[in-house]
Amino acid sequence: MQISERMKNVSGSAIRELFKVLGDPEIISFGGGNPAKECFPKQWAADTAQSLIAEKGDVLLQYGPTEGYLPLRKAYIDKVLAPLGIEATLDNVITTTGSMQGLDLIAKTVINPGDYVLVEEPTFLGTIQIFNIAQANIITVPMHEDGVHADELEEMVKKYRPVLFYTIPTFQNPTSLVMPVEVRRVAARLAAEYDMLVVEDDPYASLRFTGEALPLIKTFDTSDNTILLTSFSKTISPGLRVACCCGNPELVRKMVVAKQGSDTHSPNLNQALVERFLIEDRMPAHLDYINGVYSSSCNAMMKAIREYFPDWVKVNDPEGGLFIWCTLPAGWDADAVFHRSVSEKLVAFVPGAPFYVQKELGANSFRLNFSAEPEARITEGIRRLGDLLREMDAEMKAI
Amino acid sequence: MQISERMKNVSGSAIRELFKVLGDPEIISFGGGNPAKECFPKQWAADTAQSLIAEKGDVLLQYGPTEGYLPLRKAYIDKVLAPLGIEATLDNVITTTGSMQGLDLIAKTVINPGDYVLVEEPTFLGTIQIFNIAQANIITVPMHEDGVHADELEEMVKKYRPVLFYTIPTFQNPTSLVMPVEVRRVAARLAAEYDMLVVEDDPYASLRFTGEALPLIKTFDTSDNTILLTSFSKTISPGLRVACCCGNPELVRKMVVAKQGSDTHSPNLNQALVERFLIEDRMPAHLDYINGVYSSSCNAMMKAIREYFPDWVKVNDPEGGLFIWCTLPAGWDADAVFHRSVSEKLVAFVPGAPFYVQKELGANSFRLNFSAEPEARITEGIRRLGDLLREMDAEMKAI
Repeated sequence: MQISERMKNVSGSAIRELFKVLGDPEIISFGGGNPAKECFPKQWAADTAQSLIAEKGDVLLQYGPTEGYLPLRKAYIDKVLAPLGIEATLDNVITTTGSMQGLDLIAKTVINPGDYVLVEEPTFLGTIQIFNIAQANIITVPMHEDGVHADELEEMVKKYRPVLFYTIPTFQNPTSLVMPVEVRRVAARLAAEYDMLVVEDDPYASLRFTGEALPLIKTFDTSDNTILLTSFSKTISPGLRVACCCGNPELVRKMVVAKQGSDTHSPNLNQALVERFLIEDRMPAHLDYINGVYSSSCNAMMKAIREYFPDWVKVNDPEGGLFIWCTLPAGWDADAVFHRSVSEKLVAFVPGAPFYVQKELGANSFRLNFSAEPEARITEGIRRLGDLLREMDAEMKAI
Repeated sequence: MQISERMKNVSGSAIRELFKVLGDPEIISFGGGNPAKECFPKQWAADTAQSLIAEKGDVLLQYGPTEGYLPLRKAYIDKVLAPLGIEATLDNVITTTGSMQGLDLIAKTVINPGDYVLVEEPTFLGTIQIFNIAQANIITVPMHEDGVHADELEEMVKKYRPVLFYTIPTFQNPTSLVMPVEVRRVAARLAAEYDMLVVEDDPYASLRFTGEALPLIKTFDTSDNTILLTSFSKTISPGLRVACCCGNPELVRKMVVAKQGSDTHSPNLNQALVERFLIEDRMPAHLDYINGVYSSSCNAMMKAIREYFPDWVKVNDPEGGLFIWCTLPAGWDADAVFHRSVSEKLVAFVPGAPFYVQKELGANSFRLNFSAEPEARITEGIRRLGDLLREMDAEMKAI
């Protein structure tokens, strides 16, 4: 039995592999990007699933269209895109089995092996994995303390003519940085000038605790070369696996054909649940609630970090999203910290290297998630991690 | 914006494109492979979805493991594989978002562009699409009136050394033919001798109206080179998009990695519904019920065919499955019949060519599905189609 070239050198996602550790309830987990369980609309979902199947079971249990469940595509246009200032028709919209599938369909539809694709560095490790499987040449533009710099972005696009630029402009994973408006404008301009696709991945923008929402790159898109991925995993439920995608009709049409050969269509019941949630206008109040929870968790983690981390750990203070990004002094190996943290302190997080294309650049960084643990465990976990960092520092100095 | 080479020449599935026609309730549809809506366990699914979310919402609405929902993987081993005489452990099993995804993951994991892959001809058109997107060289072994011949199969394997042989051994789509036991043994032997993967796609075997069930190829597998795709789309519900797959641990492990980059994991609620259905031992009685319905629909269609079709239409009489395969005399164009049938008679079916790799071989054949329409409409549809065939025959003779 043969293993294909594209899969030979692809290893599993570091986060997915972490899942096995995370199954242990003794471990305080700042890994993953799991929403807090109290943020799931559980009773509503239970009752709505029952009434949806009882009333529309003949449709929902049957095969559905590959483009997606029509009422959800309409609700996405009216309740999500329109309020963001994005005009779209049904031809622009496909629903996917999570945004990961949207990205996979884009890779299948756009990338030839050997093509250049441009990503922020660091970036979402799942994206690196998908582009590796697509056998793309991944090139990078660095994230500075204020995100990607427009001049560096333009230089890379000019020099390499990548087929696409993948970005998470708001509360980026893993850095939680927000791309400034002027850089968003530049990205849209470059898409037009170089006939390059901009993939705007937007799972986190609704999770804003403070500050002003910024317009999406898609709102500056004059060439129809920006494709927007909207996930409902962080706002409603990741277990339902529902996302929507808005792009130019030619690309969306090809993605539909690729999706026929990926999973035929996304499950109907799951799409209908998200549609009901949108149509019943539950999102605004729900976001108020979950942003209250996450803002409070984030504050608890930042407070504990200020109290327990050595001051030589560089830490961002996010305005939203799910992550706090930490950088250790040069020479530190966050992977070694991770292994000792799990075994000695029963605290998990994600080391930085998997978020980097040039792994060595990420060796001294790590990502903390604050949405999956109650505040008491957040404080305790950060205290233990701070202890470990001091211990390791003392050991290094003793050598 | 670029479209990739692999997608440039791939057109949409003929059946998926048909869906647009099928939306019209005036059309009597023998296209698609939709289960009858009265065969969905609707009330059970509604009540069980509610109680599952209410009781286990914290787990089901959260991210789940890429390998699949653990209780379903266990139930598949105990309630599906064991009764078939297949011993398996968790390392052998992954759940997928429908068997289409299982096939896509196998293609990603095994096929390099240019590799030979062997399929029955005709075969499931979705498989041809997936292998085209994988840029494989598709070679074929013909389906005779008694299915694939062992000597022709061996000759093709010997000559081309394909990386895999894809087969639907029981109630094949589109022919409804059943692969004899001795050919199944040969397929397993060839898998071992040539280190070739056998992909045994099994969505229909449970839908048997008459005759004896045959052992799966997987039961003859001595080299662990057979991978079994088990779908719950035809037996429980296609809209849930749940399938399971049993293969060798190395391949399954790589498929898990590929699935991380496809849709992260299949939705949990949907997997939990299927697990409950299996664990509550609902399948045997449910299959008795739906096979009664389908057997009766199939008989109604065969009776109408004998009454209304000209005797020069060659028709199989299936022992199970969802399809009746028809062959017109040489020179007929089933595609032309299809277009007139839809516009003049309001009757839809699937022309044969899309099921063929060498499209010209399928020009005079077509597939009828009997599971999606009530018996009165089946009889009426076949009467109209018979009328059209006679009309077209008379027109041809008049030229």
